[in-house]
Amino acid sequence: MSKIQPRTLKGFRDYLPAAAIAREALIDQARAVYRSYGFVPIDTPALEYLEILAGKGGDESDKQMYRFTDAGGREVGMRFDLTIPFARFAAQHIGELGTPFKRYHVGTVWRGENTQRGRYREFMQCDFDTIGTESLVSDVETLLVIHDLVRAVGIDDFVVRVNNRKVLSGLLERLELSDRATAVLRALDKLDKVGPDKVAEEMVSAAGASAAQAREVLAMAALTGTDAEVLAALRPLVAGSERGERGVEELAGVLAGAAAAGVPAERVRLDVSIARGLDYYTGTIYETFLGELPAIGSICSGGRYDNLAELYTKQELPGIGASLGVDRLLSALEELGRVDARACTAPIFVPYFVAERRDDYLALCARLRAAGFAVELYPEPKKLGAQLKYADRRGFRCAVIVGERELDEGRCQVKLLATGENADVTLEGLVEHLRALAMH
Amino acid sequence: MSKIQPRTLKGFRDYLPAAAIAREALIDQARAVYRSYGFVPIDTPALEYLEILAGKGGDESDKQMYRFTDAGGREVGMRFDLTIPFARFAAQHIGELGTPFKRYHVGTVWRGENTQRGRYREFMQCDFDTIGTESLVSDVETLLVIHDLVRAVGIDDFVVRVNNRKVLSGLLERLELSDRATAVLRALDKLDKVGPDKVAEEMVSAAGASAAQAREVLAMAALTGTDAEVLAALRPLVAGSERGERGVEELAGVLAGAAAAGVPAERVRLDVSIARGLDYYTGTIYETFLGELPAIGSICSGGRYDNLAELYTKQELPGIGASLGVDRLLSALEELGRVDARACTAPIFVPYFVAERRDDYLALCARLRAAGFAVELYPEPKKLGAQLKYADRRGFRCAVIVGERELDEGRCQVKLLATGENADVTLEGLVEHLRALAMH
Repeated sequence: MSKIQPRTLKGFRDYLPAAAIAREALIDQARAVYRSYGFVPIDTPALEYLEILAGKGGDESDKQMYRFTDAGGREVGMRFDLTIPFARFAAQHIGELGTPFKRYHVGTVWRGENTQRGRYREFMQCDFDTIGTESLVSDVETLLVIHDLVRAVGIDDFVVRVNNRKVLSGLLERLELSDRATAVLRALDKLDKVGPDKVAEEMVSAAGASAAQAREVLAMAALTGTDAEVLAALRPLVAGSERGERGVEELAGVLAGAAAAGVPAERVRLDVSIARGLDYYTGTIYETFLGELPAIGSICSGGRYDNLAELYTKQELPGIGASLGVDRLLSALEELGRVDARACTAPIFVPYFVAERRDDYLALCARLRAAGFAVELYPEPKKLGAQLKYADRRGFRCAVIVGERELDEGRCQVKLLATGENADVTLEGLVEHLRALAMH
Repeated sequence: MSKIQPRTLKGFRDYLPAAAIAREALIDQARAVYRSYGFVPIDTPALEYLEILAGKGGDESDKQMYRFTDAGGREVGMRFDLTIPFARFAAQHIGELGTPFKRYHVGTVWRGENTQRGRYREFMQCDFDTIGTESLVSDVETLLVIHDLVRAVGIDDFVVRVNNRKVLSGLLERLELSDRATAVLRALDKLDKVGPDKVAEEMVSAAGASAAQAREVLAMAALTGTDAEVLAALRPLVAGSERGERGVEELAGVLAGAAAAGVPAERVRLDVSIARGLDYYTGTIYETFLGELPAIGSICSGGRYDNLAELYTKQELPGIGASLGVDRLLSALEELGRVDARACTAPIFVPYFVAERRDDYLALCARLRAAGFAVELYPEPKKLGAQLKYADRRGFRCAVIVGERELDEGRCQVKLLATGENADVTLEGLVEHLRALAMH
């Protein structure tokens, strides 16, 4: 019979054990952090009515969405993020759930991205949001969760950059440029790429700003210094704009709250140059950069928005949240050498090499598992060398070796696979010996 | 603006927090069991080339598969189980991974089922398999894993029913009915529904068996008694058929191994009437029934097969595995009153009710989290009564109440929400007090 070529679709990938173990660990760590703040999990379907998804994520999302007509003639789409499903979910269930509502959602999303940019078409998102409150407590907590997430995966050297969309809005208000905000922001967004002169030019030509107005906007985007210095410099720039003044006070509040909660000053930074999602966010915004790998971009981003679910319900649901880039962070951890290459979930390996004593090996392993150890028993009574080779390749930490004589005498060898170190132990004392070796 | 009706597709559902928490707990427990035997996780894409999936799961799977043409013109399908993707995965990667290979896979699958039967079109599977070995160790371990899975979710009263496909094949060999096995098995499969007389009739009319042959097949299916009695009764029925004799010895070995590993005899039962997946399984087979809810059907089923990936590779990959019915087990746990209705991930609630002391509350919560507690701070300085009502509805276990005076005096009230019991505690002694209350 001719075989079907085993292959995955372009832009899709398998997770082999080492990668799957690393991803499980990362998600477990993230969930523990979310839970430590009282966030609760939810899930939504992979497929939604097309009308729920279409036109909600902008042109690019629409173009990239996997969509089709199902067997019942319904137009459906595969979710391309977790935000729009959450908006639909909130509109549907918030009456029952009540507010404030804090949820996390770990789920797969699909986008028919251009794979030449090294992007995948299937990836995992890991979002958390607090909705139904405008309290600054949630702005501070969002920052604390981001901070704890990165710490939880073992990274110390990182900065959460914070800004507030009201500050720039306030400046534009003061400059009487609010009606041309989109064009100004579009120009400002190119600052990194084209430099201040070209941006100023575009502000004048495309947004109809005066040269002096363009200078003021650029001056704000260029502000540097300590957080206190930047705050002090911002106040006169937004003076007279209620929104702008509120934005500066919110920034001050978020920074003070983070400090009160013990976040080291070097891990938070007021950065007036970040803007994120020009249309969507309306208050505090966050981006997170790793000290050793700044070029990979932000690994956790988000911000405050005025109304999550306005497309689906009249109920106003202000909120704030962020999204952890699971795949980006996993690549970073791998690049930093923090991912264990071992594809191993049990530290203890038991070779099986007296064929007719199968039940003795099964009983021994059961006893170790009952004592809380994870143990793999090799299934076939091959030569010990072949079995230990398998154990080495897999990355077990130790082997509990029991031959015929040992079984009869109630003894075993405990071999540390990294060093080859051997200890002769009674089967009675084995649990204690493995505990002392921290094989849990 | 007119609103879009927020709704899920027919046959799809949202997981609200209580259900999502219960599912997370179940999956964590399953993963811990799999890992304790050395199984490693993998993942595969939701979408596969249609040729990988089509025609592999039988007519019904084909009909139920979600399939479409993607934007690149590829015919694709959404996976309807985790077995076929695993076969494709194994064909592709087994050279790199080596054998034996033990994997678990927790993933969502999609089937356009008839929803009138109360079935969902999106559900989660949780499979484990050992491939690349025919050792009976794996047959025993599969049973042990099933046993440990059900125990891990807190159920004691259940039976894993075990049979071996070689036994029935052996009987048919002895009766010289091997060439009519499919028709005989099809008739036998109706035993529960139509009774032995009708089955015997069909065996004669459709399979061309003699009345005496039909009687022998039915006699085997009707065997009852202790496992030892059934084994003894099976031996003469398969005598002379090498395959049948091997099947009986394998059954004896699996039962002995389970006993050696400490599985109580009442939780394993040789049941010659189970057949499962007539074409696919070739050796030991398993079904698992709950003592209190037998009618919901098997919550964990599986068996041994000869060659996992023959459609995709020449390499022979015999294996054995089973699939935990996550949704079925969750329904069962709910019906048994074992699912916590609380939609709460943090046991400790901190009301926020002195508005201008926000940072003090943030600092207090940070200190409790640093000590390992999960704590939710209410985001708004509402009246205490409203906040405690929220806490009651959510299901927190205790509230740490700190007013202005308490903040200044370094004291707090710890209120147990179930009983209303109150304790006056110093902030300094709070961590110890919460530890004593087991609020971790």
